[in-house]
Amino acid sequence: MIYFDNSATTKPHKEVLDSYLKVSMNYYGNPSSLHSLGGQAERLLTQAREQIANLLEVKANEIYFTSGGTESNNLAIKGTAHMYRNRGKHIITTSVEHPSVYEAMEQLKELGFRITYIPVDDSGRVNVKTIEQAICHDTILVSIIHVNNEVGTIQPIEEIGEMLLQYPKILFHVDHVQGIGKVDLPLHQYHIDLCSISGHKFHGLKGTGLLYIRDGVKISPLLSGGKQEKNVRSGTENVAGFVAMAKAMRFIMEKKKTELVKLKEIKKYLYHELETWDGVTIHTPKENSAPHILNFSIHGFKSEVFVHALEEKDVIVSTTSACSSKRKSLSGTLVAMGVSEELASSAIRVSLSYENTIEEAKQAIEIFNEVISNLRRVMN
Amino acid sequence: MIYFDNSATTKPHKEVLDSYLKVSMNYYGNPSSLHSLGGQAERLLTQAREQIANLLEVKANEIYFTSGGTESNNLAIKGTAHMYRNRGKHIITTSVEHPSVYEAMEQLKELGFRITYIPVDDSGRVNVKTIEQAICHDTILVSIIHVNNEVGTIQPIEEIGEMLLQYPKILFHVDHVQGIGKVDLPLHQYHIDLCSISGHKFHGLKGTGLLYIRDGVKISPLLSGGKQEKNVRSGTENVAGFVAMAKAMRFIMEKKKTELVKLKEIKKYLYHELETWDGVTIHTPKENSAPHILNFSIHGFKSEVFVHALEEKDVIVSTTSACSSKRKSLSGTLVAMGVSEELASSAIRVSLSYENTIEEAKQAIEIFNEVISNLRRVMN
Repeated sequence: MIYFDNSATTKPHKEVLDSYLKVSMNYYGNPSSLHSLGGQAERLLTQAREQIANLLEVKANEIYFTSGGTESNNLAIKGTAHMYRNRGKHIITTSVEHPSVYEAMEQLKELGFRITYIPVDDSGRVNVKTIEQAICHDTILVSIIHVNNEVGTIQPIEEIGEMLLQYPKILFHVDHVQGIGKVDLPLHQYHIDLCSISGHKFHGLKGTGLLYIRDGVKISPLLSGGKQEKNVRSGTENVAGFVAMAKAMRFIMEKKKTELVKLKEIKKYLYHELETWDGVTIHTPKENSAPHILNFSIHGFKSEVFVHALEEKDVIVSTTSACSSKRKSLSGTLVAMGVSEELASSAIRVSLSYENTIEEAKQAIEIFNEVISNLRRVMN
Repeated sequence: MIYFDNSATTKPHKEVLDSYLKVSMNYYGNPSSLHSLGGQAERLLTQAREQIANLLEVKANEIYFTSGGTESNNLAIKGTAHMYRNRGKHIITTSVEHPSVYEAMEQLKELGFRITYIPVDDSGRVNVKTIEQAICHDTILVSIIHVNNEVGTIQPIEEIGEMLLQYPKILFHVDHVQGIGKVDLPLHQYHIDLCSISGHKFHGLKGTGLLYIRDGVKISPLLSGGKQEKNVRSGTENVAGFVAMAKAMRFIMEKKKTELVKLKEIKKYLYHELETWDGVTIHTPKENSAPHILNFSIHGFKSEVFVHALEEKDVIVSTTSACSSKRKSLSGTLVAMGVSEELASSAIRVSLSYENTIEEAKQAIEIFNEVISNLRRVMN
């Protein structure tokens, strides 16, 4: 099987699962407990936090464990809104965010918040000046996706962070779920206050994630209770899951050092092949896009038809994002980029991991070709 | 080791971990994906949901998976508050709730909600009439813990559910985290609208839980996004974790049938032994208390001292709940029951599981005795 749907989820590494298993069996104490079983669990949690902090080049006290990317995004946005609602009720984001950002924003509207959705150009990118122009006296948060999950466009996070330095009262949240391990995001250097990461997108386990909260930044908890995670995220900690996430993050950061070139080559190969084909439009921009996502349309075929036809040949790709694929709605990102409805309805996303090889890509291209020929024959 | 801290967390069953591992390795697809890997994962999720629904004697569409008890409690309370805030801003709960209920309520106060905390008698129980008297024209929710996590008192859920039938606009939430698998709670029969359950309290895995939402009841999501769990709880589903939780629930329900008598005998034995000792006060009431929790004070010794002394003899117990033990605050439940500060500061909680034996209890009693004698000798 050729698995090209790594932006939906990844296969957990065996070593990551081994760590999970070992911790779950042997160190099952509640980290909040006074006794040694609790102490052991707490030490493992502290270790995982320190490892992750080192990998992200931040401080351990800036890492808050959550149940995943969706929780991290909701916590960052609603936690900021709740904390600073007396200071202001205006938030700026983009028209190409993940649903967990978009829907959180829409919920805040019901509570009287105003949301500005910054448009994107035809490469899916926002303009820093447009963001700055949207800032009001009561703006409390700017929330921007780092790597778009549908087409792979990289947003100008550095410039936005730089610009926001002039507005010290506005918090800057970045959804880094698709970027981690693939595209650099130096959190301190880019002046990021809040940053969301999800474990299962880099061969960690589902149900694990984290929110980076810059030292000194305060937000309200979304899940309150036993005051775990310094009262920002209550609930008995999934110690084994977070130890596993630390391990997965170490792996992906190592791979980024040694195999990013390979990943880029695979994408480049796919890009150059598809680019030459009749009736194929590539949506992922050549510049400023992540090395693992390639989005394109095959004219005349609905996405679902192509996905299922490929699947019969053991190639797994997706229609836009997993989070919207079942609802059969058009890709929000493509629509925001100005792609026509017809083209958007035949969009296909290939998303790679470091586990993929150039041989798989070559095989996939042959199969794409074969499947398109077959489909065209059937249609005529 | 004698592990008597099962209300803090339990050791996951080997079979439960095996299921987790198998699903994580072989069925790692995102359930929202259109392709077969997604379909397989979705079917497993559906199966887990159906198994759990059968065990709880409810419908599969009434089960919503979450990351644990704290999330379930927060979702039930804040989700109700957000959904019905235009209908009313009054909520009734008790003075002996878990922090994840209490703190959620306190957060709602900041948003203009009024919270009535119903007092308890010296056995830790609320009176149904007092609850009814507290109902206002704008009450939207009554939230009651089923089995108190610190002393094991069982609340009169059936009577409260019955009484609330006359107030069809008020939702009834029950925190069943400590009760599941130990004390019956027929959800339909008791007219419960919302019910929280946590996986790691019955040998499932940390980071898994569920909220039962009665068919027809609507609440707002706390985590919004990809519209998973019928839009009540977004985020990629922790499929392996929920399959594991279904298995753990099947085990605990079977044990409840075959070994509840044994569990009750162990508690009875401990109760009768401790009852006769000089300088020991038992806080857990004889009537209306769960079969697995026993809370008592040994006069003159701070809880921490006794916990650590026992630990040296390989007996693991706790000071009140794990969620408050590190903060060294007094047990909220004991204070609400009218226990003096001095006694509350020496409270010890023994919490059993079906894995414990009467032999362990006998050994523990010997060790308690020995430790108390030693401590008294040191003190004199």
